[in-house]
Amino acid sequence: MAPMMKAVVKARPGAGLEMIQRPIPDYGPSEVLVKVRAASICGTDLHIYKWDKWAETRIHPPVVVGHEVCGEVVARGAAVKVPNVGDFVSLESHVICNLCAYCRTGRGHICQNTHLIGVDRDGGFAEYIAIDAQNAWVNPPDMPVEIAVLQENFGNAVHTAFATDVTAKKVLVTGCGPVGIMTIAVARAAAARSIYATDVSPYRLDLARQMGADLALNAVKENVVEQVLAATDGEGVDILLEMSGAPSAIEQGFALLKTGGEAALLGVAPGPFTFDWNHHIVFKAARVYGISGRKLWETWYQSRGLVRSGAVDLQPVVTHRFQLEDFEKAFAIMASGESGKIVLFP
Amino acid sequence: MAPMMKAVVKARPGAGLEMIQRPIPDYGPSEVLVKVRAASICGTDLHIYKWDKWAETRIHPPVVVGHEVCGEVVARGAAVKVPNVGDFVSLESHVICNLCAYCRTGRGHICQNTHLIGVDRDGGFAEYIAIDAQNAWVNPPDMPVEIAVLQENFGNAVHTAFATDVTAKKVLVTGCGPVGIMTIAVARAAAARSIYATDVSPYRLDLARQMGADLALNAVKENVVEQVLAATDGEGVDILLEMSGAPSAIEQGFALLKTGGEAALLGVAPGPFTFDWNHHIVFKAARVYGISGRKLWETWYQSRGLVRSGAVDLQPVVTHRFQLEDFEKAFAIMASGESGKIVLFP
Amino acid sequence: MAPMMKAVVKARPGAGLEMIQRPIPDYGPSEVLVKVRAASICGTDLHIYKWDKWAETRIHPPVVVGHEVCGEVVARGAAVKVPNVGDFVSLESHVICNLCAYCRTGRGHICQNTHLIGVDRDGGFAEYIAIDAQNAWVNPPDMPVEIAVLQENFGNAVHTAFATDVTAKKVLVTGCGPVGIMTIAVARAAAARSIYATDVSPYRLDLARQMGADLALNAVKENVVEQVLAATDGEGVDILLEMSGAPSAIEQGFALLKTGGEAALLGVAPGPFTFDWNHHIVFKAARVYGISGRKLWETWYQSRGLVRSGAVDLQPVVTHRFQLEDFEKAFAIMASGESGKIVLFP
Amino acid sequence: MAPMMKAVVKARPGAGLEMIQRPIPDYGPSEVLVKVRAASICGTDLHIYKWDKWAETRIHPPVVVGHEVCGEVVARGAAVKVPNVGDFVSLESHVICNLCAYCRTGRGHICQNTHLIGVDRDGGFAEYIAIDAQNAWVNPPDMPVEIAVLQENFGNAVHTAFATDVTAKKVLVTGCGPVGIMTIAVARAAAARSIYATDVSPYRLDLARQMGADLALNAVKENVVEQVLAATDGEGVDILLEMSGAPSAIEQGFALLKTGGEAALLGVAPGPFTFDWNHHIVFKAARVYGISGRKLWETWYQSRGLVRSGAVDLQPVVTHRFQLEDFEKAFAIMASGESGKIVLFP
Repeated sequence: MAPMMKAVVKARPGAGLEMIQRPIPDYGPSEVLVKVRAASICGTDLHIYKWDKWAETRIHPPVVVGHEVCGEVVARGAAVKVPNVGDFVSLESHVICNLCAYCRTGRGHICQNTHLIGVDRDGGFAEYIAIDAQNAWVNPPDMPVEIAVLQENFGNAVHTAFATDVTAKKVLVTGCGPVGIMTIAVARAAAARSIYATDVSPYRLDLARQMGADLALNAVKENVVEQVLAATDGEGVDILLEMSGAPSAIEQGFALLKTGGEAALLGVAPGPFTFDWNHHIVFKAARVYGISGRKLWETWYQSRGLVRSGAVDLQPVVTHRFQLEDFEKAFAIMASGESGKIVLFP
Repeated sequence: MAPMMKAVVKARPGAGLEMIQRPIPDYGPSEVLVKVRAASICGTDLHIYKWDKWAETRIHPPVVVGHEVCGEVVARGAAVKVPNVGDFVSLESHVICNLCAYCRTGRGHICQNTHLIGVDRDGGFAEYIAIDAQNAWVNPPDMPVEIAVLQENFGNAVHTAFATDVTAKKVLVTGCGPVGIMTIAVARAAAARSIYATDVSPYRLDLARQMGADLALNAVKENVVEQVLAATDGEGVDILLEMSGAPSAIEQGFALLKTGGEAALLGVAPGPFTFDWNHHIVFKAARVYGISGRKLWETWYQSRGLVRSGAVDLQPVVTHRFQLEDFEKAFAIMASGESGKIVLFP
Repeated sequence: MAPMMKAVVKARPGAGLEMIQRPIPDYGPSEVLVKVRAASICGTDLHIYKWDKWAETRIHPPVVVGHEVCGEVVARGAAVKVPNVGDFVSLESHVICNLCAYCRTGRGHICQNTHLIGVDRDGGFAEYIAIDAQNAWVNPPDMPVEIAVLQENFGNAVHTAFATDVTAKKVLVTGCGPVGIMTIAVARAAAARSIYATDVSPYRLDLARQMGADLALNAVKENVVEQVLAATDGEGVDILLEMSGAPSAIEQGFALLKTGGEAALLGVAPGPFTFDWNHHIVFKAARVYGISGRKLWETWYQSRGLVRSGAVDLQPVVTHRFQLEDFEKAFAIMASGESGKIVLFP
Repeated sequence: MAPMMKAVVKARPGAGLEMIQRPIPDYGPSEVLVKVRAASICGTDLHIYKWDKWAETRIHPPVVVGHEVCGEVVARGAAVKVPNVGDFVSLESHVICNLCAYCRTGRGHICQNTHLIGVDRDGGFAEYIAIDAQNAWVNPPDMPVEIAVLQENFGNAVHTAFATDVTAKKVLVTGCGPVGIMTIAVARAAAARSIYATDVSPYRLDLARQMGADLALNAVKENVVEQVLAATDGEGVDILLEMSGAPSAIEQGFALLKTGGEAALLGVAPGPFTFDWNHHIVFKAARVYGISGRKLWETWYQSRGLVRSGAVDLQPVVTHRFQLEDFEKAFAIMASGESGKIVLFP
């Protein structure tokens, strides 16, 4: 009988998650088996927990959830050359096909055959996970576990901020969840001229200030457009980094975007919405970039550079820590909006 | 008393235009006086003729209309070094300030202090026009007048097509008015892999085929999405060049745009509309570029290169010719949609 | 005993090649076995034939030579998903590691662990070749064999020409060997404003004209700088595509390059040489790009687009055809410089 | 009789400079008259002082030298709209034609009709200077004079560092004169992963460390290649910023440049030199950018952003201050190499 492990799974359609015992997974010839040292909770996990419309369509229970993971390689398949057993790795959550035109032209992050761990296949809120070797990014052995586990999500921030060139530019970040505040840190590291941030949570606005925002505004209680215009000599911002998905934030963001400005969009909207295409994009000669995942693996190299040079300090992002068994408490805090990143330890 | 000239003017608020006698305009120290040899009608002129909402807000009668103009320099101000009297010139319609940050960083096409001839100040449906010397683009003396007059509008096509790199790519052009069909010609010249075009006018779809479209589809009578998918092995297109402003065309265009694709938008929508931001931009990792005018003056240099090398033949674009006195006939044909470019000769 | 095949090999150090019988090669789990339908001769093969300094250092006999190859997949390893047995394929000659930072960021063409078929491992002047499945590019079944075999080398031309944006630009191509004339064809397809070409062989200059050069000049008998300046209103060219490696051609090319111009360099010089760094690069604000191989696999997709749309016609490039047995005759013509591409049929 | 001012001039061919009384210059309708508050010494000024070969060819005495200048606008021509009398301005030293294709396409920094103040026309080592209004960059009134005067030269550093994207990259700066150390500061501000610097002066290497170099090496006393390889896991650097013009430094720099790396070149070599084109550029797929002046005026906007956000602190760059009368002392220190920037106050 296979040795067992504990794992947090979506066992059946409907709200909630549960911790169960499962066999430690097998690994294929080009895969590695990773003993999880930490996993962090993403907004996506909350959608799965709550079993919203998106989850209902996408998730096929039972599945182990969790896609932000770091751990130690404890075994590897016969065809694997990198990483080695014993390596301390962070996981890229998208397992790509390597065969399509996207994968074959350096754009694997938009591979249409991708499988996301914790969503399309078993994830990392567990003691072990098996994953394609190329998805295991080798960290220096002395990297703090809490930083290592953040890297997958940090990559979203890096990918978004580097979709444009923020250096010496005025930047607006709409949405100060964990990715939003990490995006602020990246823009600050890359010498943005000034950084404005909006959110609806005072807790998160405090984190935004801590990560480097010059001005962090409550999008419902303050007049964002007026205040940012005042702070920019009436000009608005060169760059919008949209991390919220809220149509009202998108509207504010484009209202503040200068003619000729650039907008990188990571936030996912609740659905289609009405938008003033002419004034916000066409007449404004705006450049708008949809952002998906991380560039594989360019973003990981960039992230490493930022973290290891000390240009970005991710420590303040982690606000809560729990044993994996206490995942219910963790999800409750996550749902409250009163958190940065929450890390689980199996 | 100043010598007089004939001119087509919007004399007062309301529909219609009239031909009147006006003094030949004065020119300033940095301006040239141009004797108009030809002027062509743009969609904007039709908006002014009809006096729609946009016109009502923007136009302050009386104003001579017309902004697509070529002619001969007959006099120049004391500070002018280029062009010379006698030069055959086409006019750039945007008179920019040269002082703002846009003008000072090679982005004068989005100068916020711009004045558009025929809209904000007197235009070229007249015998003479005075304009800033830098707006007079010198043509070779033997360039056909009908080609010379097209260059301003051709520049929109060049600017849009070159917002991305169409070479070896699959391209969809939505909207086959004069700019649309010139955009097709540019994409063809630059070795697009294949070009699909849509419009609602059979007349214009014929022009689209003549200018190089591989497949020209009637957007209301044919299943555009199905047919373009069939023609692209189910993949869709790499590049969308949106020249119509019709929300339904924008919807079709983005539905056909491949993940990771690029869209350049010149068409002006009738107003805000509902759009599936997530699927069309964010998840698709699309790159979207609002296009405004022509790059000053880079687009003009590019246009010259395409026309003078013979890579683009603009002759089929001009479908109708009228004396300036017959402007009413010209506008009637323009309004019918059964035309390419209509040229007026004063 | 393994079934045998004929193959042209460098059997031992020293000049010359010989045809021998060898076992049909084995193929690994991620490899395919290709029955060669055609192979063409590259300048590199001539270096190996002659056993020059470079060959002496790089080649470890015995090795089957030849790296420009097309053929049919007759078998594949267990892990191969693409291509299928029966597919008609062209081969990318660089077998890359897929593990290094270059390979992992879409820059496999500069992988430092690359192995070149026909150089570092057995090549395709033979009846069969085994190669990594990802190196087998699937062609449409009806593609002419002579075009299919050209694609690897055509990729060098595409990579070089597309290192910059040639559309509407004045271009100088120095060196009219097969890659040079294919580069001319690409620049012509992409609507270069004008194309100037230089070589020392009248035969090749004729091919250059046939492929689209506006002016093809004998670099030793004509005053290249004077004539190109005359043809460009004294301005010189926007873009230099250097395909010769001759220091004198490099000198001429940079002398003709406009301030702010771009140079893409594929030609390999005979050794270090003296160069006026200040005037040719620094003061001129030139941008200079070293070109290596083809982008994997972006260049292959671009090449396909150009060939299949008909924008580029490669037929005139092939000037000679031989049975593989007659390789000595083929190499003799190759050495004479009086040829375009020479294709061998096993 | 015109009011007089003191000015440091090259009065006649030959070494040396002298201070004389000259009439305060007239200004044209599009010019401003600036009362100089500070001027700093550039390497170019030293060449003029020493009357080397370059100076002999380029300079036509008598001319007031000095091109790094800040001051107050005390009068302006009738056609000037910006700046205002009373504005505190720094001067761009290149007076461009505004008429050529470069000027008309946002590339005025490579205008071939440019006139450099202090070289081609009277400069700013004087109490007053007249200059085209567009060359007067308006500073905030409270900007320290020593920072304001640095901006022209700082622009060279910004232009060079931003010719590539240094963020998260390993960077080598060869040459630690004032521009070199400011380039280090820009790379540090923009979150370079690591910065290596070389020079032959211990004094300058100390400044390099102060401005943010991780490792500053004496190019003649230390094994630069070995040490930088050791510091980069044997890989070398992603980016070379060449500020010295020394062929030996260029050789070291390219030896350390990774395959696929980028090199921006500002340093001016003493003359043509022998270079291994194949290994340093072609095989390496290097991208090499000649840098000339500052982008007009994009670099100025970038520079402002970096200085005003506090991302770059230029204070340590200024190591010496003199009254204009003491220019001989200043030039002597400049010649010793034991200085950062030397500022003169008239």
